[in-house]
Amino acid sequence: MLQDNRDTLPRRVGAGLEVAHVLVRDRSKPRVPECRDEWVTTDPEVVFADETVDIVVEVMGGETPAREYIERAIDAGKSVVSANKYLLATHGPALLERAGRKGVDLAFEASVGGGIPVIRTLREALTGDSVVSIHGILNGTCNYILTRMKKAGLAFDDALREAQELGYAEADPTLDVEGFDAAQKLVVTSMLAFGASVPVSEVSVEGITRVDAVDFAAAERFGYTIKHLAIGRDLGDELSLHVHPALVPRASVVANIDDVLNCVFIQGRGLGPCLLVGRGAGDMPTAVSVVSDIVDAARSKLEGQAGLTTRAIHAVPRKLQPLEELSCRYYLRFDVGDTPGVLGVIASALGAEGVSIEQMVQEGTAGSNDLPVSVLMITHETQEGNVLRALEAIGREAFLRGKPRFIRIEDI
Amino acid sequence: MLQDNRDTLPRRVGAGLEVAHVLVRDRSKPRVPECRDEWVTTDPEVVFADETVDIVVEVMGGETPAREYIERAIDAGKSVVSANKYLLATHGPALLERAGRKGVDLAFEASVGGGIPVIRTLREALTGDSVVSIHGILNGTCNYILTRMKKAGLAFDDALREAQELGYAEADPTLDVEGFDAAQKLVVTSMLAFGASVPVSEVSVEGITRVDAVDFAAAERFGYTIKHLAIGRDLGDELSLHVHPALVPRASVVANIDDVLNCVFIQGRGLGPCLLVGRGAGDMPTAVSVVSDIVDAARSKLEGQAGLTTRAIHAVPRKLQPLEELSCRYYLRFDVGDTPGVLGVIASALGAEGVSIEQMVQEGTAGSNDLPVSVLMITHETQEGNVLRALEAIGREAFLRGKPRFIRIEDI
Repeated sequence: MLQDNRDTLPRRVGAGLEVAHVLVRDRSKPRVPECRDEWVTTDPEVVFADETVDIVVEVMGGETPAREYIERAIDAGKSVVSANKYLLATHGPALLERAGRKGVDLAFEASVGGGIPVIRTLREALTGDSVVSIHGILNGTCNYILTRMKKAGLAFDDALREAQELGYAEADPTLDVEGFDAAQKLVVTSMLAFGASVPVSEVSVEGITRVDAVDFAAAERFGYTIKHLAIGRDLGDELSLHVHPALVPRASVVANIDDVLNCVFIQGRGLGPCLLVGRGAGDMPTAVSVVSDIVDAARSKLEGQAGLTTRAIHAVPRKLQPLEELSCRYYLRFDVGDTPGVLGVIASALGAEGVSIEQMVQEGTAGSNDLPVSVLMITHETQEGNVLRALEAIGREAFLRGKPRFIRIEDI
Repeated sequence: MLQDNRDTLPRRVGAGLEVAHVLVRDRSKPRVPECRDEWVTTDPEVVFADETVDIVVEVMGGETPAREYIERAIDAGKSVVSANKYLLATHGPALLERAGRKGVDLAFEASVGGGIPVIRTLREALTGDSVVSIHGILNGTCNYILTRMKKAGLAFDDALREAQELGYAEADPTLDVEGFDAAQKLVVTSMLAFGASVPVSEVSVEGITRVDAVDFAAAERFGYTIKHLAIGRDLGDELSLHVHPALVPRASVVANIDDVLNCVFIQGRGLGPCLLVGRGAGDMPTAVSVVSDIVDAARSKLEGQAGLTTRAIHAVPRKLQPLEELSCRYYLRFDVGDTPGVLGVIASALGAEGVSIEQMVQEGTAGSNDLPVSVLMITHETQEGNVLRALEAIGREAFLRGKPRFIRIEDI
């Protein structure tokens, strides 16, 4: 990309950009033809010792040795461009502070949403506004699987297998399908959106492995579809950060961001709604973000003002809202033996916790074959604590086949 | 907005932002309470003569006196933030060159798409990429009217009246519904997206006044809806710039950007597809864009590098593709008296120009009441010149009631 745009980039930067070194693990691997042999090295010291290096781009991922390398680059007065969501989510505020003290930039557009300019938009376009909430589809693997469940009626396992065959899911898909990848991206985004420094471990995370084809059909029936969302809300004193599958209205724009696309829906106090959509992964989209960060870092350095962008990010610890206080509407599913009076018991248990029912549907018909019947409900808005207590009570009933299931509803 | 964010803005800018003057036409008009009386003046010389003024924000619109004021501000070494799409579309390259020579910034995020960071994304996020095409819904009035025609089956006139009652359309709606507003925004966007300096008068523009409820029903039947699009395509040697209603697949994301929302769909060579959606108008969204530009301009000035952003925009004259060479699929409508053999004549005339039919539907039934029958067609991809020649020939046939109608199809 640097090569392809060598005519226009110097005009944008105010100077030329030259690759000095390419640090690799294995010298013998074949490289793209643009990568000159004399650039390639396996010795990190070559990079740190070279005083002519202004910017270090870290695209190795993971904690070790990326963290040490980034810290050493910062300490050596070099600006850093990183695509490392894990590192930013776990050590972002400390690394930003380190860069700020040293007067260098730490840019990380590629760490969230691939080529979508999420970080840049939050940092610069919304600089005069404040963010009320963000709703992100931040994991392409989950979105692909849920799209296939929606469109082809596949079960989760079959959709996952298909995603793996297409290269959209890893052999071990845990990080993606359990929601941890999205949670890391939510934490990085929250640094910018809410000025929040929050440990990933404190974010409530639920993946998509328990989403059932039955739930998709039921969601459809109620006018919804199911998306895996990373949600952040500024509640004033507290911040609410959650990653989970959610029912979203079928006609909403977010409901139709399908396949491996990612999106971030931002509600700004002044801006109102703003949606950014694009490819969340892939070498070229990632490169677009990395190069835009390189240009920024180079311009700052040339201007003698490296680090100004970085210092403007001010992430402080924020208190998270306890999960039981989360307030929304809920989709509930009870698989029951067709016992007369079941509905009365369920409704009473919900009522006892102040959970009121907005809509109810009974799926499947009673018969001699002893197949369970699904009781499907949409509640009015209520607190999660109430729902959990009611479901615990109902879960003890003998008529129940399997555990009650609930999915939050996001009316975006 | 400056007042509301007075705690965070200095950190982002690196210095405080102070309002020095507010130039108004009529001193006696009531102002918001944040606007101090000593700021308000009706004398532009007060602004230009004040050497402590670093940035001039122009939100008056139109050519006179905005152009003169912007030029004088630039010549006085002040950076300018403008929301003036008309001025940028008609004199953008000259104003940018003037700012570049003087070493000041000319920022104009608010001129396109209200609060949507279109300009910023093209200028910075895509700095290392090149843009293949842009498809924008850039006029909220048109989008509202078409949405009401789609959802409520209204005729154009009724939808326009509703938009006027709601304040979404002006008493004289010409600029909006005839597509000129969108064309101006397309030209401004093309400066960034394609480095193109193109006179607005050279853009082919068609508004929405001729879109008929019949066409909406037909589009629906073929799996499409109708949106008013501003389209730019880099064809290599030539650039294709068009503003017109288009059939877009009903399931596409752009087809579902409804009501007064705006959007810009960017296809980057590296980035792939990227969609930005938000409110295209309104005081607060516009303010978000203006403030983000003020912050940029202030930072550049503080860094002693004012004008670098502006100088990086390099808009040169580009040749436009002749309209008759435009190549796409077409929706055609012929209202005909139900004469036997009509279809044969139409199909032969199309065939004679190399236009082949993909789908055909005949609406309405023949009867004694002499109501016209609509022959609806979707063509395979062909050049506009072929379609125009065929329609001209068919238009001469006696069986035709009214002129043949065609709408381009955009498969995005």
